[in-house]
Amino acid sequence: MGKKTWIIADGYIPTYGTGKEPEFSSHETVCILNTGNQDANVEITLFFTDRDPVGPYKITVDARRTKHIRFNDLYDPEPVPKGVDYASVIHSDVPIVAQHTRLDSRQAENALLSTIAYGE
Amino acid sequence: MGKKTWIIADGYIPTYGTGKEPEFSSHETVCILNTGNQDANVEITLFFTDRDPVGPYKITVDARRTKHIRFNDLYDPEPVPKGVDYASVIHSDVPIVAQHTRLDSRQAENALLSTIAYGE
Amino acid sequence: MGKKTWIIADGYIPTYGTGKEPEFSSHETVCILNTGNQDANVEITLFFTDRDPVGPYKITVDARRTKHIRFNDLYDPEPVPKGVDYASVIHSDVPIVAQHTRLDSRQAENALLSTIAYGE
Amino acid sequence: MGKKTWIIADGYIPTYGTGKEPEFSSHETVCILNTGNQDANVEITLFFTDRDPVGPYKITVDARRTKHIRFNDLYDPEPVPKGVDYASVIHSDVPIVAQHTRLDSRQAENALLSTIAYGE
Repeated sequence: MGKKTWIIADGYIPTYGTGKEPEFSSHETVCILNTGNQDANVEITLFFTDRDPVGPYKITVDARRTKHIRFNDLYDPEPVPKGVDYASVIHSDVPIVAQHTRLDSRQAENALLSTIAYGE
Repeated sequence: MGKKTWIIADGYIPTYGTGKEPEFSSHETVCILNTGNQDANVEITLFFTDRDPVGPYKITVDARRTKHIRFNDLYDPEPVPKGVDYASVIHSDVPIVAQHTRLDSRQAENALLSTIAYGE
Repeated sequence: MGKKTWIIADGYIPTYGTGKEPEFSSHETVCILNTGNQDANVEITLFFTDRDPVGPYKITVDARRTKHIRFNDLYDPEPVPKGVDYASVIHSDVPIVAQHTRLDSRQAENALLSTIAYGE
Repeated sequence: MGKKTWIIADGYIPTYGTGKEPEFSSHETVCILNTGNQDANVEITLFFTDRDPVGPYKITVDARRTKHIRFNDLYDPEPVPKGVDYASVIHSDVPIVAQHTRLDSRQAENALLSTIAYGE
């Protein structure tokens, strides 16, 4: 179930956070579900405002598993910069579903946003 | 109206909350609408990061009714674990519409997120 | 542009709010855009958990205009109850676009959610 | 990847904000991603409740780049009014993806919302 390509146009990791880490660190997540019987080889490419795209970041989501990936934890080929606008394309070799969620803890009280990604 | 299968990739019930219960308990909800003239037999299956899927959780949404289901209230075949990443597939024998909402009350002030689920 | 039928599965108007009214009243909104050259005759029907649907609530969205409708302001055929789960079907005689937004001001600090409705 | 027309039905820029500017100014953003090899010529048209549409606001999103556009920063043909309901149509000559995000900082603690726009 799902689609092979997903897009999150609004990427942004706040530069700081407040509260207990890592639970309340400011972070941005793409939640991927692979309902199929075959492992999903996922490649994430990041797009920026003023330089060429970076990637792919390679991730495996096992068959019949979900993986909630913090962009903060992506380090190869390079860490995702904080405080910078970006966007991401998530491509998989088998159908998956992707949802985008951000926790912003720059202030004392957290703010949350979430949306289904754009799939095609 | 709607579709028979819906997917919520970002599932997470915070482990605790603050404020008056149950109104302000941290919770996660799937809101289902059945606009048809036939009752909807709905089965929810949960997917995890590191173990096999669990379910089905069986729910009936009567004809021309809505049901807002807290994942916190699903107990059979087993309670939905808190503080753990999951994802859910909602399957119905008649077309329905599903929307995902989370209230996070771990802090003094609540945070909210919502998105239409992915339907197919 | 758009579709003739839109569905919001998660309807809920908090029973109270804090802060300056009406700006910070807890409220729930459906934002409708009619980009066409013909007025849109819109009918909203509300679905509940334990009783028959109520409606239609009739609204006109003029050609090339947007209308942001608070469910709190719908009174005919009856006021939308507060603190009660509902869902809504928005039907128009010409294509429109509908987005759902809630401001929850039950606490000192507001929480916000928004999602595109389900269209078909 | 994407579509040529996107619609955000819920447009609203709060009239004021609290906290450090511009990071915590109340603002509303459309995040656009152009994954293609050709620059995207984007035109935004604003729709209102009680007057004719305004636009187009012209923006270029370069090939393989993302641009996160604050409506607050649109000045030509006229500034986007604050505290007023509006909606927007985003049209591009090549496929793009658009996501809508609002930061509301009218209170001490921020609130956030986001949703994929409606594309067709």
